[in-house]
Amino acid sequence: MPVGDINFPEMIPIAGVKLSAVSAGIKKTSASGESRLDLVLIELPATAKVAGVYTQNAYCAAPITLCREHAAYSSNSRYLIINSGNANACTGEQGIQVALATCKAVAIQAGVDCKLVLPFSTGVIGEPLPIDKIEKSIPELFEKLEESHWPLAAEGIMTTDTCPKGVSKSLVIDGSSDKLIINGIAKGSGMINPNMATMLAYVVTNACVDMQLLQEILIEAVNLSFNRITIDGDTSTNDSCLLVAAGKSDIVINDKRSAHYLVFKQAVFEMFKELAQKIVRDGEGATKFVTISVEEGINSPECLQVAYAIAHSPLVKTALFASDANWGRIVAAIGYAGVEGLCVDGIRVYLDDVLIVEKGGRAQSYSEDAGAAVMLKDEILLRVCLGRGEVHETIWTTDLTHEYITINAEYRT
Amino acid sequence: MPVGDINFPEMIPIAGVKLSAVSAGIKKTSASGESRLDLVLIELPATAKVAGVYTQNAYCAAPITLCREHAAYSSNSRYLIINSGNANACTGEQGIQVALATCKAVAIQAGVDCKLVLPFSTGVIGEPLPIDKIEKSIPELFEKLEESHWPLAAEGIMTTDTCPKGVSKSLVIDGSSDKLIINGIAKGSGMINPNMATMLAYVVTNACVDMQLLQEILIEAVNLSFNRITIDGDTSTNDSCLLVAAGKSDIVINDKRSAHYLVFKQAVFEMFKELAQKIVRDGEGATKFVTISVEEGINSPECLQVAYAIAHSPLVKTALFASDANWGRIVAAIGYAGVEGLCVDGIRVYLDDVLIVEKGGRAQSYSEDAGAAVMLKDEILLRVCLGRGEVHETIWTTDLTHEYITINAEYRT
Repeated sequence: MPVGDINFPEMIPIAGVKLSAVSAGIKKTSASGESRLDLVLIELPATAKVAGVYTQNAYCAAPITLCREHAAYSSNSRYLIINSGNANACTGEQGIQVALATCKAVAIQAGVDCKLVLPFSTGVIGEPLPIDKIEKSIPELFEKLEESHWPLAAEGIMTTDTCPKGVSKSLVIDGSSDKLIINGIAKGSGMINPNMATMLAYVVTNACVDMQLLQEILIEAVNLSFNRITIDGDTSTNDSCLLVAAGKSDIVINDKRSAHYLVFKQAVFEMFKELAQKIVRDGEGATKFVTISVEEGINSPECLQVAYAIAHSPLVKTALFASDANWGRIVAAIGYAGVEGLCVDGIRVYLDDVLIVEKGGRAQSYSEDAGAAVMLKDEILLRVCLGRGEVHETIWTTDLTHEYITINAEYRT
Repeated sequence: MPVGDINFPEMIPIAGVKLSAVSAGIKKTSASGESRLDLVLIELPATAKVAGVYTQNAYCAAPITLCREHAAYSSNSRYLIINSGNANACTGEQGIQVALATCKAVAIQAGVDCKLVLPFSTGVIGEPLPIDKIEKSIPELFEKLEESHWPLAAEGIMTTDTCPKGVSKSLVIDGSSDKLIINGIAKGSGMINPNMATMLAYVVTNACVDMQLLQEILIEAVNLSFNRITIDGDTSTNDSCLLVAAGKSDIVINDKRSAHYLVFKQAVFEMFKELAQKIVRDGEGATKFVTISVEEGINSPECLQVAYAIAHSPLVKTALFASDANWGRIVAAIGYAGVEGLCVDGIRVYLDDVLIVEKGGRAQSYSEDAGAAVMLKDEILLRVCLGRGEVHETIWTTDLTHEYITINAEYRT
């Protein structure tokens, strides 16, 4: 059960962007014997521009290698083909051949250059991806393409996610007859860590955006969203995040000084943050949604160092699970984060508005009851004020639960 | 249940070193209502020299602050006073006063300078340490001092440990009528991470060792033992490790060129390693004892980077718990360890002797059955050959289990 509301919203169609999903038989059938959606196709119009960021894992998956190649060849990709259930990672040269064959199958069916197809995979690492099942499903994928099939696509990219994740926004733009539309879908619930996660995210707008601006906005948006979440500290081999400007509208953003630039950027940032938070809310076994805000730091790296030390501490995470205001574990994590010259006397720690720690010890005003009341909530804000500067950083994480262990001890079985 | 054999050995008495432990009522009583040992005193002879290393956590506990002061004043400490059940950490100025009062109570009873007493605490963080209970127990502690009470002391320093941990060695030394004796006791089972752990260790020899050599040997020994283990990646506020040369024997080690120097150093290293491994074997909820050996690296930091990325990965740890040879998670951890210019084609990964991964993918010779057979064992060697140098590093860790969550979700309740 995700923490808080992550209902799938109504998605506004974007002109020229069609989606489909089928069951190719890559995923095992569900417990009740039903086949599950595991192959997704997204068709983009010829006007589309595609910006992407990919995993920094040295063992990057075969589709990522190919994606980078194809994206470097052209930013006008026409098709995204995504399978779930198998990551096609650590599959050596054979894996590259399978990813290439997948692109070719799509390209032949569509009559486009193979390099205009970007492949993505997510799921178990190290298993051969069954290319025959994919090839067999390509015709059906094309038949099912519809501008309204966002929910199907969001479902088709899921792995251990308990629910599909989407965001959709439309904004009136001065001087344009078209509304600005931005849609996004994402998947991921374990192996979630900055840079990035077992995470796939596809965000598409109807605007026409200059390619360089698009890439810049994407990098900044990822940095403030998917690179600010952590569930278990594991970074996957397959992370990918695309920002696509479909371009079939009269909204043109080709200059940082253009009136719409800031509006667009702000909307993209908000949607990325919302998508990233949905991933955390659906974190494997999560029962808490925890915002960690580290304030009054000298610089951003030291704020993040402290934030991630807390977010990655299994002791803090199990205390969160137990709704136990065991703040000693929080200060221990702050203390070992490795911030140079940290003076603990100046640090204040809050649970929501409750001051817990100051002057190197428990705050005089603190009562166990006040801490316990916050810990019982599903959504908790943990604030650390370092008292040595003016920089702040925020990240989002979950607790560590029996359910996490169960999910990950049984994932392959 | 610890993994493998960690039986408490017969401890050979060391002349002039007496120990005692009592129930001061700092720990809660056991489930069956029995009081538990929670206050330990170790008396050292006037000939003793004491070397120490302490936690690097910025929120270091009050006793650590005082230990550092007292150790700097004199290396001839006469008493070590250790309480379990309460860490006296994050207790502000009041905590310092309590630690000081503890030293004073011992000093008055013994008639020595207060600065010749070193205080240690381990347990819950942030609770006031009840000084009255300690003061009341001091006379009984002195009455019970015996050279044979090593097992009592080992039990008295335990927190979530399931069993006391000790090592004892004696060696015939050429030209000495006395045998070289080294005894060690340690505690710790969670919050275990390099630099160091919620770990207390006291290793005592009967040799007479030059103070500078003693400190050098201690630092090197800790680096190869307690700084090479990790259970949950948390570093405590209270870690301390002492190496004491009691000095009441005819074995003198005052020069690196002396005949006994290497023998002594080697014996100390082995005992530290054994104590450290016992801590891992009794890791909270552990069902596996895992040795991670990273070989063929360019330098030590990159080998450790890879080793700890694997050891800290909750996904690897849950796969170990499930006895699932999910090697994809291992290579993903190698890939995100952050080693610059890592070429995955040259990396080989072995489970015991079974080659799993080579040339960026599953080894041709690998079979699931062979991997599964290794994973079913209690003790597993995970070898990563980076194929780019000649340096290797070894660390020890455990799996991540439901029991770990249970222990840490319920610790304070």
